[in-house]
Amino acid sequence: MKLILDLDTGIDDAFALAYALASPEVELIGVTGTYGNVTVADGVRNTRALLALFGRPDIPVYPGPSPEGWAVAEISAFIHGANGLGGVELPAPVAPPAGSAVDFLIDAVRTHPDLVIVPTGASTSIAAAVQDDHFAEHARIVMMGGALTVPGNVRPWAEANVWQDPEATDEVFRRAHHVTMIGLDVTLKTLLTSSDVASWREQGTEVGEVLAALADYYIGAYSTTAPHLGGCGLHDPLAVAVAIDPSLVTCLALPMQVDVAGETRGRTIGDLSRQGPMVNVAVDVDVERFLGAFMTRLTRLAANT
Amino acid sequence: MKLILDLDTGIDDAFALAYALASPEVELIGVTGTYGNVTVADGVRNTRALLALFGRPDIPVYPGPSPEGWAVAEISAFIHGANGLGGVELPAPVAPPAGSAVDFLIDAVRTHPDLVIVPTGASTSIAAAVQDDHFAEHARIVMMGGALTVPGNVRPWAEANVWQDPEATDEVFRRAHHVTMIGLDVTLKTLLTSSDVASWREQGTEVGEVLAALADYYIGAYSTTAPHLGGCGLHDPLAVAVAIDPSLVTCLALPMQVDVAGETRGRTIGDLSRQGPMVNVAVDVDVERFLGAFMTRLTRLAANT
Repeated sequence: MKLILDLDTGIDDAFALAYALASPEVELIGVTGTYGNVTVADGVRNTRALLALFGRPDIPVYPGPSPEGWAVAEISAFIHGANGLGGVELPAPVAPPAGSAVDFLIDAVRTHPDLVIVPTGASTSIAAAVQDDHFAEHARIVMMGGALTVPGNVRPWAEANVWQDPEATDEVFRRAHHVTMIGLDVTLKTLLTSSDVASWREQGTEVGEVLAALADYYIGAYSTTAPHLGGCGLHDPLAVAVAIDPSLVTCLALPMQVDVAGETRGRTIGDLSRQGPMVNVAVDVDVERFLGAFMTRLTRLAANT
Repeated sequence: MKLILDLDTGIDDAFALAYALASPEVELIGVTGTYGNVTVADGVRNTRALLALFGRPDIPVYPGPSPEGWAVAEISAFIHGANGLGGVELPAPVAPPAGSAVDFLIDAVRTHPDLVIVPTGASTSIAAAVQDDHFAEHARIVMMGGALTVPGNVRPWAEANVWQDPEATDEVFRRAHHVTMIGLDVTLKTLLTSSDVASWREQGTEVGEVLAALADYYIGAYSTTAPHLGGCGLHDPLAVAVAIDPSLVTCLALPMQVDVAGETRGRTIGDLSRQGPMVNVAVDVDVERFLGAFMTRLTRLAANT
């Protein structure tokens, strides 16, 4: 299968990228850059630096649109570090970024019938692409974002990615025919702990050390913001894993909306009055099987890169 | 099976009562009175008048507790009429109401292992009963209330029954081991329309006429408050139907809470941090099979009473 990641790179975005590159089933044909954990510019820089580190500097990275004057929220900077990578410094990438994210997304869906798109940040680029009818009808999207059966994380009713651009996610829900929502309902059940990280460091490679350092920072941030969890949520890599193997999650199919006005702005919720595409909302996950796949793949990447 | 209804009678409560009495599988051993659509006093009066109309004045009715000075909300009076029965006048009941609702509930669970309790109003009585450990562990509760995957009806995040006493429903979720939540997720999919009602009136009986008049009023109110539905929601009778036949709904099992503080007070939502009993939350319903059973049973009651 072919894959495009739409990342705001971000520590768990880095893990999502690593998961994709370590998956033999996947050909990652490009990455588009969105915002949320970081600005588009910082996310693109981080993505390109990580691709170089992981031995794949050939994969193109396309910066997407973001609102003028948008700035990283304090909580995002705390969880991912000011540079988005928990202070881990990587060599600056050499090649300039590639062309338009939205054009790349639309063209890729026309070209590759076996493509899956995994957005893990603000939905702005995907909402622009979904204005194209062919994209809306054919794009297979497995997005990290939202919360249906559990509270949000930036507001009691809103998850961080959707909160960035509620109108955009609502547009994706309304127009796209094949959307799977991997929200906090499942990603807060898939936790990485400090003991997991040791096996990466033990590989004695640069990649192993970087992955471990990213995880150390992220787990430390979670121990402050959500100590009851006992680990950090593997939000974005779970979406990649489900794109590869949908049987990892149990879904509920219902028409979804994002509240764009009123007191619950940013909430992802079912809308029984809507005639439109159904969204597959993941409500349960095979935690053990996902964590097994996650550790196996990232450890393999750490060993072989 | 034995059944107790905890009603705030109310038009759809009247239908729930009719459904129970028309079900040969069920022995209705008593009704407890709560508040919401009406006061406890008015609900008990309506229940007893309906029991007399339906030919079962022998079934005891136990008034439950309600907050001092509690008054019916304007929207409830609009939807159910000032007297709770859409202005339909029934003869005043003769016998005085029976004893304490909470004691009756606790004793009934000790006495009848095949008992199911169906609460359709504020959770106040059930929350009092659930303080009894035996009740908490053994009571099988199929409650109409809440909304998990769809918006609320009295606030964007809150359903009317739970909104009356959020602390009480939260207590039921925390302590009771066998709770099924029949919320707006499913009850707004099971709609009664004007054409359905004709078959009751055609029976030419007093019961048929009363059922039709109740439905006419209720459908009229819904056509003002929720015209997009094209009918009225059969909230409370669906809970009775599921108590009799759980296979009518598909459920999601998760630990649930009611938000009792903050901006989302009254919201029913999953709580991944909670170690406690799981609630079976109905997220889908076999609409056709339920509506078939509902019409068959109420038409039978209209014909034979």
